[in-house]
Amino acid sequence: MKKEVKVLAPGTVANLVCGFDVLGLCLHEPNDIMEVKLLDKREVIIHSADGYPLPSDPTQNTAGAPLIEMINELNKNIGFEITIHKKIKPGSGLGSSAASAAGATVAANHLLGNIFSNQDLVRFAMYGEKVASGVKHADNVAPCIYGGVTLIRSIHPLDIVSIPCPDLFVTIVHPQIEVRTADARQILRKEVLLKDAIRQWGNIAGLVAGFMQNDLDLIGRSLEDVIIEPVRSILIPGFDAVKSKCKEAGALGGGISGSGPSIFMLSKDKATAEIVEKVMKDIYDNIGLPYYTYVTTINKSGVTIID
Amino acid sequence: MKKEVKVLAPGTVANLVCGFDVLGLCLHEPNDIMEVKLLDKREVIIHSADGYPLPSDPTQNTAGAPLIEMINELNKNIGFEITIHKKIKPGSGLGSSAASAAGATVAANHLLGNIFSNQDLVRFAMYGEKVASGVKHADNVAPCIYGGVTLIRSIHPLDIVSIPCPDLFVTIVHPQIEVRTADARQILRKEVLLKDAIRQWGNIAGLVAGFMQNDLDLIGRSLEDVIIEPVRSILIPGFDAVKSKCKEAGALGGGISGSGPSIFMLSKDKATAEIVEKVMKDIYDNIGLPYYTYVTTINKSGVTIID
Repeated sequence: MKKEVKVLAPGTVANLVCGFDVLGLCLHEPNDIMEVKLLDKREVIIHSADGYPLPSDPTQNTAGAPLIEMINELNKNIGFEITIHKKIKPGSGLGSSAASAAGATVAANHLLGNIFSNQDLVRFAMYGEKVASGVKHADNVAPCIYGGVTLIRSIHPLDIVSIPCPDLFVTIVHPQIEVRTADARQILRKEVLLKDAIRQWGNIAGLVAGFMQNDLDLIGRSLEDVIIEPVRSILIPGFDAVKSKCKEAGALGGGISGSGPSIFMLSKDKATAEIVEKVMKDIYDNIGLPYYTYVTTINKSGVTIID
Repeated sequence: MKKEVKVLAPGTVANLVCGFDVLGLCLHEPNDIMEVKLLDKREVIIHSADGYPLPSDPTQNTAGAPLIEMINELNKNIGFEITIHKKIKPGSGLGSSAASAAGATVAANHLLGNIFSNQDLVRFAMYGEKVASGVKHADNVAPCIYGGVTLIRSIHPLDIVSIPCPDLFVTIVHPQIEVRTADARQILRKEVLLKDAIRQWGNIAGLVAGFMQNDLDLIGRSLEDVIIEPVRSILIPGFDAVKSKCKEAGALGGGISGSGPSIFMLSKDKATAEIVEKVMKDIYDNIGLPYYTYVTTINKSGVTIID
């Protein structure tokens, strides 16, 4: 039996425009790298490989909490030692905590002979999200584990649906400001207009149909969020300019990644995705805010074993 | 050039559970039969074949109003004489007004050499819906013209998406009570909880994915409406019993057809659909309300030229 494994744990885009809280997609970049060792003692040990200040108490660590749950459920004298190379910046809106949680569960399952289903792994990984944000949500961990675009139709009971989608390019800009998930959640109204909700569910239905039929125009028309984005985008300087100018430059559409501050745009090909990146850079150079950008694709595999 | 045509104009189910205002499906039964003659004079004449008291003023008739719009747009000296065999009872929730409007536009277009697209025909037919209910909605006329399951992603601009779906059976019960569309609309709250809206858009996304992937279990799990049905079902005696007992009997799920009072249930095969019909009959026999039932299938063709 293999005692040690290395995995690539990818970033994800949750709250996919009209799919707030239910739709997410998996990215090829950025990625965390995680090494996980199987131990014969009931403990979980966390190391940060690059000096990034991760919580070393496993119950408070997004990779540790899921594995504690897994060990408790198995009720065996096993443990895991996890070394995390944290490349996805926490607070970026790119699923940093989900990558740790999903990477740890996939790696542990691999070492245990793949005894758990992907849905089980999501269930464990959600304990990591609870550590990170206080809420057991699945819209980052599910695409991180399943790959591609995933729908979380329901949390209780957990119902995850993989949505086939075309090989789209994703351009991301991460402006270096802090948007706390808790703040981003707090500014949302608890009630919404029925007419806006109807428009939103028309759009998510169109988006799912567009993904499944490879209908890029329909995807573009459906990438509209009339409920969350108008409120949250206020927290992200440059958002409106990024969105309108990237669409002018040929992007199908996009929006806030997770609860921000990263913004993502989907494009049909690499050339467009690179022009979109240039547009994003120009906007933040003008504003004078530091940023990172990524030009990547939808990752259909999710967490990947690399060694 | 053909001067006269006969069409079958089918009933439709709008407000498809979680797809309120945006999803509808076309039925094989019941159907109106319509005969339409091309005239060389700018007028629209309406006849009721079976003595049913339809408005004879074409501007006030759901079949007449769309053809007046069509003639005005063409700006030609043509007209139509329409004879309607009204088999779909007005006020049933089965798209009676839409059948007249859609049947008239498809028939007229046929006589004109199919110069209009289906989307144009929906645009004309919506004038009939405006006559009937005061609102230009498309969620009955679109499935009636396109056939199958249709998504109205947007009304302004009109964006209709055909959703491929499996060959499901539909059982319908029409209890003989009156639910006015205006009343059914008025009792809806203008605001809904964000958490309910999220659940609804998770369900419609699941329903569209289930239809497109032939995933009957997913269709069943997604046929849930947490916003409209809890309010409107109060207007329909027996609704809760019909829904729960039909599902126990094997139906995938269902709900209110349009704004009621008809209730529809989807089933995977004819045998189940017939058991479901028996369950519906027993419930309304017990309540002592007269009713009609139909066991039919999803009509992928929409309005059909029969002569």
